[in-house]
Amino acid sequence: MSLLVTGSIGIDSVKTPYGVSENCLGGSAIYFSLAASFFSPVRLIGAIGPDCPFDLAQVFAGRDVDLKGLEKRPLGKTFRWKGAYHYTMSEAMTEYVELNVLGEAPPPVPAEYRDSKYIFLANTAPALQMQLLEQMESPVFVAADTMNCWIEGRLDDLKTLLRKIHALIINEDEARMLAGEGNLITAMEKILAMGPGIIIVKKGESGSIMCCRGGEKFIMPAYPATEVKDPTGAGDTFAGALMGYLAKVGRTDFAALKTAMAYGNVAASFTISDFSVNGLTAISINDIESRLENLKRLTQF
Amino acid sequence: MSLLVTGSIGIDSVKTPYGVSENCLGGSAIYFSLAASFFSPVRLIGAIGPDCPFDLAQVFAGRDVDLKGLEKRPLGKTFRWKGAYHYTMSEAMTEYVELNVLGEAPPPVPAEYRDSKYIFLANTAPALQMQLLEQMESPVFVAADTMNCWIEGRLDDLKTLLRKIHALIINEDEARMLAGEGNLITAMEKILAMGPGIIIVKKGESGSIMCCRGGEKFIMPAYPATEVKDPTGAGDTFAGALMGYLAKVGRTDFAALKTAMAYGNVAASFTISDFSVNGLTAISINDIESRLENLKRLTQF
Repeated sequence: MSLLVTGSIGIDSVKTPYGVSENCLGGSAIYFSLAASFFSPVRLIGAIGPDCPFDLAQVFAGRDVDLKGLEKRPLGKTFRWKGAYHYTMSEAMTEYVELNVLGEAPPPVPAEYRDSKYIFLANTAPALQMQLLEQMESPVFVAADTMNCWIEGRLDDLKTLLRKIHALIINEDEARMLAGEGNLITAMEKILAMGPGIIIVKKGESGSIMCCRGGEKFIMPAYPATEVKDPTGAGDTFAGALMGYLAKVGRTDFAALKTAMAYGNVAASFTISDFSVNGLTAISINDIESRLENLKRLTQF
Repeated sequence: MSLLVTGSIGIDSVKTPYGVSENCLGGSAIYFSLAASFFSPVRLIGAIGPDCPFDLAQVFAGRDVDLKGLEKRPLGKTFRWKGAYHYTMSEAMTEYVELNVLGEAPPPVPAEYRDSKYIFLANTAPALQMQLLEQMESPVFVAADTMNCWIEGRLDDLKTLLRKIHALIINEDEARMLAGEGNLITAMEKILAMGPGIIIVKKGESGSIMCCRGGEKFIMPAYPATEVKDPTGAGDTFAGALMGYLAKVGRTDFAALKTAMAYGNVAASFTISDFSVNGLTAISINDIESRLENLKRLTQF
């Protein structure tokens, strides 16, 4: 099934206890597409400015990632983020965010993309996520991410979006904030009542949890990575492998969703093993499969 | 196999978003013994003062918990703790701790207890833990807990203890502190090099991880509890059910340890469902077994 992602393409600067990476490739659509392309062709929608130093055709060389939706805006500037992670690296400390082209109207959806069946709306203003979704003819499975600033500042838009998507994939603290509830499982159940049939909460090094409207739940610890240099992009990698696997098998039943989460989990463990996208570009699907088998061994009792 | 625990018996006062419980029964040895007694007879060593308002014979009525090691000190005062949990309830804020009898020499080990094979040394000064352990004739499997104050203030004693025990069962932050290492898995591997063949790290609502010297690892998410009123005693309940199961089956191989951790996990989910020990005293082994089956369903993929 065709898979479309819309999200950021960024110039990141990151500092962690393991080093510094200045002006490196980042952005949700980049991590998502790299991870998803292990499983399925990907259609990417995103915008950059002339300051973007990366040759994205080269970045995705050898992968089935369609860049027709990549818009180069002569008058815009590329999204930039600078942040740091300390000690346990569980949380990014943002030094600055420059939205730049991300703050403008999103790129139009190319005509060839409008029949996309699996859609991932990476974090951005909920109104823009909806604007993109409305251009789709017959989506089968739509997942979205969001973050605290939209929960605080654009809650009405977000609630409208929640009624139009199948799955919400967000962080732990955002789930609590959105539901206004400290208990995570209860918070997830409250979010299901807002619209999506599936909520998946990312808990960083503590794994992820899925709750479905039918009552099914799945809990998965994170892959026990000892090599952790830079957590940037872990969440988008998780979503990318998850959606890539679903698009590949063309199913979104509970069993498929569980396997998809497991692929997301191990794919993210490679992303965090190096700066920028280097952990993802260095591996093959065989590395992912082998780590998935290991994850099964680590969690069975 | 005989199972012995030494730890605190306390008068707790706890405040959580769900209510207040003043001067209620608490202490590591209490939670441990209640949880372990679902699986195995327990021998308890602990001390109280004349101010202790609880009839412990009544608390353990109908359970095979031997109280010969319970010392009532006419001149001492019972251990007291007062604390609060906020919002996500992931961390206790201590208002006061009165060590009282816990700060004095520990009770002697009754002659009838000295042949105990499975031993749990709940958190106290490492020198006292060793003093107790030295009175044992032929322990088969010794596990211990410790906390930040001993890592900071009694590190030499603690390192000596680590060479005498089989398993260390501690919290996440303490593992990082003890190893001087931010990556949890690497921290656990460093702790294995200090002596114990097994380290189990408790991560609260994010579950637990075990690393063994042979390289085996096991990762388990916490049972997804929606009813969480008071997390006090969850860690000691975890250790109690874990050690109780091991003592029952008389094995400490990797498979047995994994199952033991799963029992610890679900037993703790009952403890946190109510204040004090009420969550544990209200259930039967059937409730634990049924939740264990559910945990398997929740984690398999």
